[in-house]
Parts: sequence; structure tokens; C-alpha cells
Amino acid sequence: MSPARVTIPQSIDGSPPCNGLHMNGQDSLVQPLLTDFYQITMCYAYWKTGTHNEPAVFDVFFRKNPFHGEFTVFAGLEDCLRFVENFKFSQSDIEYVKKILPENAEPAFYEYLETLDGSHLTIEAVREGSVVFPKVPLITIYGPLAMCQLLETSFLNLVNYASLVATNAARFRQASGAKLSLLEFGLRRAQGPNGGLTASKYCYIGGFDGTSNVLAGKLFGIPDTAKTMDLFQASIEKRTWLLDQMAWGVVQSEVSDGELTAFVAYAIAFPDSFLALIDTYDVLRSGVVNFVATIMSLNEQKHEINAFGVGTHLVTCQKQPALGCVYKLVAQSAQPKIKLSQDVTKITIPGKKKCYRIFGKNGSAILDLMMLEEEPEPKPNEQILCRHPFEQNNQTAQCLLERRLRHFVRIIVVI
Amino acid sequence: MSPARVTIPQSIDGSPPCNGLHMNGQDSLVQPLLTDFYQITMCYAYWKTGTHNEPAVFDVFFRKNPFHGEFTVFAGLEDCLRFVENFKFSQSDIEYVKKILPENAEPAFYEYLETLDGSHLTIEAVREGSVVFPKVPLITIYGPLAMCQLLETSFLNLVNYASLVATNAARFRQASGAKLSLLEFGLRRAQGPNGGLTASKYCYIGGFDGTSNVLAGKLFGIPDTAKTMDLFQASIEKRTWLLDQMAWGVVQSEVSDGELTAFVAYAIAFPDSFLALIDTYDVLRSGVVNFVATIMSLNEQKHEINAFGVGTHLVTCQKQPALGCVYKLVAQSAQPKIKLSQDVTKITIPGKKKCYRIFGKNGSAILDLMMLEEEPEPKPNEQILCRHPFEQNNQTAQCLLERRLRHFVRIIVVI
Repeated sequence: MSPARVTIPQSIDGSPPCNGLHMNGQDSLVQPLLTDFYQITMCYAYWKTGTHNEPAVFDVFFRKNPFHGEFTVFAGLEDCLRFVENFKFSQSDIEYVKKILPENAEPAFYEYLETLDGSHLTIEAVREGSVVFPKVPLITIYGPLAMCQLLETSFLNLVNYASLVATNAARFRQASGAKLSLLEFGLRRAQGPNGGLTASKYCYIGGFDGTSNVLAGKLFGIPDTAKTMDLFQASIEKRTWLLDQMAWGVVQSEVSDGELTAFVAYAIAFPDSFLALIDTYDVLRSGVVNFVATIMSLNEQKHEINAFGVGTHLVTCQKQPALGCVYKLVAQSAQPKIKLSQDVTKITIPGKKKCYRIFGKNGSAILDLMMLEEEPEPKPNEQILCRHPFEQNNQTAQCLLERRLRHFVRIIVVI
Repeated sequence: MSPARVTIPQSIDGSPPCNGLHMNGQDSLVQPLLTDFYQITMCYAYWKTGTHNEPAVFDVFFRKNPFHGEFTVFAGLEDCLRFVENFKFSQSDIEYVKKILPENAEPAFYEYLETLDGSHLTIEAVREGSVVFPKVPLITIYGPLAMCQLLETSFLNLVNYASLVATNAARFRQASGAKLSLLEFGLRRAQGPNGGLTASKYCYIGGFDGTSNVLAGKLFGIPDTAKTMDLFQASIEKRTWLLDQMAWGVVQSEVSDGELTAFVAYAIAFPDSFLALIDTYDVLRSGVVNFVATIMSLNEQKHEINAFGVGTHLVTCQKQPALGCVYKLVAQSAQPKIKLSQDVTKITIPGKKKCYRIFGKNGSAILDLMMLEEEPEPKPNEQILCRHPFEQNNQTAQCLLERRLRHFVRIIVVI
């Protein structure tokens, strides 16, 4: 199979693609059977009714920003593309599907499954790492109905958590400002090994500077970072020698000797990258005192505090542990398709769409404009009438578009 | 390397080991570098001070049951053992470690790293799937100090989420009773591909009956299950034919025709395993009506409702997305080690311990008794004085032990 032709237009902010990440370590578990069984029964139903090759369009989007926030950072695209590039049922996959489908399923269906790959798909997507908003398609998949259907669960799995944790990281970055170094320390509490690796990768995309996860450093080129040793005090007993090396301005009886010893030992070993865990004994009565004492000594040598590590809350996204991305049919055989629901937020926006991010005269983004493919492009310095698709009190807005109108950046992948 | 000798004593309840799971699909990402960088610097510090081969004992335990609950289901052991069996730094791992350690690190350290494997470790553990409680060691690792240290992050990663989600599943099972079939449907919202697979596996251990995740079915032998199609209504347009096949007792104008059609189509295809998603249009005004109508027809054919699927809340453990297992040094060179803290819950219980689950005369468990290795075993029909290690109002309890005293079941692994 020839490699995917990927066109990556320049990003909105001109940054290099994907923060220089290279992805050579995708999980071997990302394979066609990493899906819900119902996708396979759907595929069978399409095949049985002869609709499996009808041209279809599916949108991936979410309905609400996570964490009661106002934005989402889109991530997971690279994993989706790699999955599609390598999509092929193995012989043992087919054998397994035979076991779980009803016995009376037609044998020709399995021959059909064997032929499937990503070669008839076209995928358009917002650029990885973009700031995105509800309802706007993040990924649009064009291709044969059944093949598109088989991607649903895997795409959602790959996009949902990646975008959630990248957004969480971006919020930490927003709160801390641009100057501090933020380090991801969540591996031990992450949701499984891949949960940990995914967190390291997408926290980096979301604005973190490094990770404690060595494998993430090796696979993705994310800077690794040392964490200090809350255990050192129990295992190094020759500490008096170390204490003699430096002069301390705190009363030793107030604070833990062992903790101080550990900090000092670590500071001597890594004076340029000193990091401390201050909650081993007592944060305020011991940890902070020892930490400040150590830092003061380091400052005399022209070092300064410039990094913080974040663990469990970052990687598990405690405040909201799942993003609700969905994957919906929006057109079939050139007919727009809509999902109706009494719950207005669950109604889908039908048809093949194109999206523009509209910038105001001062250069900041005003809104994302979604149009049907056949509608004329919006033009700078012309008035357009925009309509919010669902909110009553937000139905119209007149926008004077200026010369700086730019297309919402999209990646076009043809394989 | 010879395979691990694993002795699995009979379980407390006499059930077969590990629910018949076989684990032939461990994530290729579970390797020695899936760790925090600080473990490698600790290892270097031990090696540098010549303490790396001192015999050490580490306990894995947690401090508080999750979900404000009263129990935890221990899981993840099999993954830990497989990790230890295969533990070996590759040449490219060593090269990567050279890059991230300071340049002045001694070259002999890398030769030492190359020699490391699990052959000098002994691991004792509570049996996978056991109900366990705070402070009691779940896994105890005996071996050279530095080698034990290198397992910390990986063990915590493998145990924390597995135990959390198994416990969550057990709580769903407790709420639903023993008869219903419970199915895990969380793949699309799980925290990454492995998060999804881990959830499928450990929800099964926690008491679920199956999963929608096909790969989990293939790898672990967990029963796969079909989910119905909330999308079928948009893609099948020959529905009038289907409606004619059955007589319905509901007024069609009240409910969605499309939804009913989808349910019926699915029920005809899979009359023995019909499952419905009822929130596509409106749960009470459409979904339930159509569902009941379909079920009534199926009931006439002697089918009944006996299964429920649970997704996002189950796999992400929304109520508490991380379990706080820790990995602490409790003895070094035959000396007990304690971690002191102003926060009494953070103090570790020092020394090599043995644990017994004490059963009362009526056959139900009373408490888990932790003793130092050298203390005499408790005996049935003798009084013992038990002391709660931390809680003031729970310090003593006199227990008359009956003949049915049995050892807390442990797995002994020697590799």
C-alpha cells in the first residue's frame, strides 16, 4: 500500500506541524477489531442490503466543551490516520468474527471483510492541536458506507481522550502563564499503560514542557525530566556528610532531617534540574521549609524555581473524565442525513459542510462559520448573516469580515 | 529465562483461578522504560552508593477504598507478573537512558543496567480478583533494592486502574443483583485504546458478563455482545416492509417510526440477543415505547429482558478516576523501614508482614490481621488482641477465632 499523501497547510499561528512530535510507537492494540461488535453487525446489515458501497459522509464532533470551559484542543488525528493507513483484517481476525456472528451469516461476507482497507477513504480534518468548538466537524470521513462505519469506535476512542487531556493541559498552561515549565507526572495513576503514554503525548501538545514518563520521551521525543526522591530518606543513611557540605538558615528541629538530606543530595547531583516533592512529611512545616532552604542555596549559584509537575488530576481529567465526541452519518448517496431528537442538542447538522474561522478587524477570531459545500465562500469586507444552529437567543449575528479572513485550516488526506 | 513457577493456592471461595481469563495480548508498551525518570535516577543513586544489591522489601497497598465504598477488588497482578518475567532493557533503551542522564554519569552503570532482569525477585500477592482493604499489602516484592525500585511506576500503573475499574464493575454488579447480564460498552469513551481493553478485561473480573469490545473478546476470551444500531434509522429506508411483519399495540404518531423500524429489524436479525439504545430520540416518549413494543413481541416468542450495558461511567470511573495505590520500602538489609509523616494516613507500616483473613463462627470474614513475619500464627479458638493501626476509636478488638480460620490466600511467584 502506498503511503498516505498528507497535505498539511500552514497552521493559523504559523507553528511547525505537531510540535515536532514523531509518532513511531503507536500501540499495537490499535487494530480493526478494537471496535464495538455492533459496528460489525452494522457492516453486515449494510452488506446484506447492498448499501455497503454507497458513498457516505460522516462527521466527528462534540456537543459541549469539557470542564465547563469555553474551548477544546483537538488531538488524536495522527493516531486515527495511522490506524486507517494500516487498516486490514488479519486472517485470525476473520476467524474470530466468524465465531461471534450468528452461524447463518453468509460466508461471502467474510470474503468481503478481507478486501477492506482505507484505500477508498478521504479524510478531512482540523489540524491537530487546533482550538475547536462544539458542533464543528473535527474530522470528516468520505467513503463507502460500511468501511466508514467500521472506523467509528476506534476514531472516537483515539480522539476523545487525546482531546480531553490536551484540553486539560492547555487549561493548566493558561492558569500558569507562558513562562513556567509544566511537567506531566501522571503515569502511576493513569488509566493503564497507554493511558499514561497518551497523556504524556497529548499534554505536550496541550502546552506542557515535558514528562516524567521515560518511554514517552523515547517514543515521541518529549523532553524527559527527573523527579526527586521521596524515598531517598529511607535508604541513604550517610547523611551527616552531606549536611556538612552546605550552610543552612533553618532550625533543624522544626523540620525533617531526612527530607532535607534528600533534597540536598538531589540538588548536588542535579543542580540545573532540581525538583522536589514537598508532601512527604508535612507540606508547610517541613517540605516547604526544606525546599526553600535548598532553593536559596541553589539561587546563590544562580539557579531559580521555574517548573511545576502535575500528576493525577492532569492525566485522569478528574473534573470530567470523558469527552463526548460522536461520529454521525451526515450524507449518504449525495442525500443529506439528519438525526432528529426531542433533545435539541442531539440533532445533527446534515450534509457535507465547509467551515471557516472568521477573524475580526483586530485580528482575533469571532466565530466558526459552517456552510453547505455548494454555498458561495464568505468574502472579506462583505456582510453575512450568521445563524446559531440551536440557541434561541443567539440566532443571528452580522459580521463585517475584514481582509484577514482566512480559511479554517484543514488537513486533506487521500489514501 | 525459564518460565515463572507460579503456585496458585485454592481461592477463598473455591472459584477457578482468574475467571478462566487467558492473557495473551499484553500491551507491547509495557516495558522497562514505561516508568518515571526518577526511578532511573534513584537506581543510579543506589548503584553509586553501593546499596543497589541490598536486599529490600516493598509493599504495594492503598490507603482508602475508592468511591466512598467499603471494599476494593484487587486486579492487575497478571500484568505485573508478565512485566517482571519479560523485564530486560534493550540496547536502544540503554542508548536512550545515556542521552537523558547527565553526561558525567559513569559508563559502568549502563553495563549494570544491561544485566538487570527479574531473576532475583520474589513476589507474593493477594490473588487476582480478591476483595481487599486499605493498608494490607496487595503485592510484596523481595529483591535487590535497585531492581525493586525500577518496578514502582509500572506496577502502580498496572494495578491502580485495573483495581479501580474492577471495583467499579463489582459495585454495578452489587447494585443490579446476580441474575442480570451486565455488559461493558465503554470503548469509545475510554482513556485510550489500552484504557478500553483494560476496562473490558477488569470489568469482567469485577463481575460483568461481556463487552462490546471485539478485540477484548478475541484476546481475553470475554464474551462479545452486539449493541443495537442508533444509526440504522438513517440508512435503512425500506422500513414499511418490516412494519408489516408484526402487529403493534402503540399509536405510531406518538413515537419515532424510524426507531421502531430499527428495533424491529434488529430483533428479526438477532431474536436471541436483542439489545436496544433507547435515547436516540426521546427516552420516555419514544425509546421506551418502541423498546417495550419490540420486547412484547419478542416475549411472545419466549424471549425476555435480561441484560444492561454500561459505558462511560463504568470505564472512566467518573466518581473517582484514580485509585491511590502506593509502593513503599518496608525493609532494607533485614531492617524494617518506616515512612513518617505529620499526616497519620501517610505513615507506612514497617517490616516484612504476613496477613490472615479472620473468619467468625458464622463463616463470614471479620477482619484482615497483619502480623510481623516472626510472630506466631493466630490459631482457631484462641483469643487474640487486634489493634487498628491508625484509628483511635478502633484500637482494639477481641476475636474468638473458630476452626474455619484460613490463611489469606496468596500467590507465591519465584522467578
